[in-house]
Amino acid sequence: MGVKPTVLKLGGSVITDKNKPSTANVDAIDRLADEISSAKVSSLILVHGGGSFGHPIAKKYNLTEGYGDPSQVIGFSETHRAMTKLNNFVMEALFSHNINAVVVQPSSCVLTTGGRIQSMEQKPIERMLDMGLVPVLFGDAVLDSEKGFAILSGDQLVSSLAITFGASRIIMGGDVDGLYTADPKVNASAKLIERVTLEELKNQKHEIEGSKAIDDVTGGMLGKMRELIPAIEKNIQTLIVNATKPLRVYKALREEEVVGTIIKKR
Amino acid sequence: MGVKPTVLKLGGSVITDKNKPSTANVDAIDRLADEISSAKVSSLILVHGGGSFGHPIAKKYNLTEGYGDPSQVIGFSETHRAMTKLNNFVMEALFSHNINAVVVQPSSCVLTTGGRIQSMEQKPIERMLDMGLVPVLFGDAVLDSEKGFAILSGDQLVSSLAITFGASRIIMGGDVDGLYTADPKVNASAKLIERVTLEELKNQKHEIEGSKAIDDVTGGMLGKMRELIPAIEKNIQTLIVNATKPLRVYKALREEEVVGTIIKKR
Repeated sequence: MGVKPTVLKLGGSVITDKNKPSTANVDAIDRLADEISSAKVSSLILVHGGGSFGHPIAKKYNLTEGYGDPSQVIGFSETHRAMTKLNNFVMEALFSHNINAVVVQPSSCVLTTGGRIQSMEQKPIERMLDMGLVPVLFGDAVLDSEKGFAILSGDQLVSSLAITFGASRIIMGGDVDGLYTADPKVNASAKLIERVTLEELKNQKHEIEGSKAIDDVTGGMLGKMRELIPAIEKNIQTLIVNATKPLRVYKALREEEVVGTIIKKR
Repeated sequence: MGVKPTVLKLGGSVITDKNKPSTANVDAIDRLADEISSAKVSSLILVHGGGSFGHPIAKKYNLTEGYGDPSQVIGFSETHRAMTKLNNFVMEALFSHNINAVVVQPSSCVLTTGGRIQSMEQKPIERMLDMGLVPVLFGDAVLDSEKGFAILSGDQLVSSLAITFGASRIIMGGDVDGLYTADPKVNASAKLIERVTLEELKNQKHEIEGSKAIDDVTGGMLGKMRELIPAIEKNIQTLIVNATKPLRVYKALREEEVVGTIIKKR
């Protein structure tokens, strides 16, 4: 492979209305597709979350608990279908902005063990990157060698893809400006952390606050950070930006100055 | 793995109306789901064709020719979407007959080289079989290491899956009763071949006739036979039955006497 890819995550909280079941935020999706298209990144992997599409169904059928009952199979399937529906909105927007995107369904190519990626078919994605296409993945319900089923978060995918495909950097587009010294949604004195090293992060983990939507079965900001640590440890610079605000993702992709939190190994 | 799986193919000509674009034969799909459910096979892999869903789009965008133009990317994506739509009909019917089916999208887990399967993630399917779930795959547009894109036929998938997962047998459910001495659709004196060995088949290849819908980008009966030879060579017995006729697939699954063609290695 030539150019190192950038891995961009679009959070479920950005591309869906988290308060309304299965409601896509089509305006946000279209704007982000436009920003991605305008940024003209030479090699890109896109991952999106589930927001109000995947999570409620996964929760309803207790998929995070694993496989205990045959009735969950339909829940497993329903979770996919919901995610496919959301993914369709994303794909439509990408196509309408002339992005050569190709979907990769994690449930078809990933096996987890205890919820952690154990095995993943890499060759189709490798080939897409070689061809200049943009692989698009998403958080999904997957098969698990121990639990039967597991929920694979978009965040775990981001970290794993970044490591596997030797990404130059990760951009996490969420609904907050970055990491804060306290939860900015409840604490007015919370300050944005502009730069932080992995070591500093590990020492002050308990202080980091951010997106905490209670219906996020894959964990809030702390969970996200935990997922990203293996990639950051491999020297993949990670930037957290607010994708609900125009041009933040664009600037991040263009490597321009942008409000957000940069996390480096050291 | 315990029990050796049976691989069942439901032809595109059976589950769709080949003359009407993107029209599912919902009655046939429902009847077949009922037959599969009643047969209670202990380990099953299901593969279905594309019929009037996948083929016309794949053809329109010249996907069989490989990747030559960025405009094909949307055709690649459209082919998936069409196949996903058809697959949804199949999945709905399977669920309504209490079959614990789980979809596996080939484009996400297969890479071909010159149109031949080069690499495929097996672990999720292995896990499904272990759990007693029924993996459902279909003919799909996939990434190719040489041509960029390729059309992976359901038939090649059947053969590959049967070999990979050590299937006991293959059942090909098409729109003809089996192999004939001539094309039964145009030649009234055509006789059904009830049993044939691989050697006999190889010697009389030119005489075998059957389904020859011109819009089948994956080849007619001869193409099907060519695909199945590697599996038959591994002693996987193959049975061709007419899935448009009630109870043929049921009887085949139950290993009962049924009108059709049995192909054995010797």
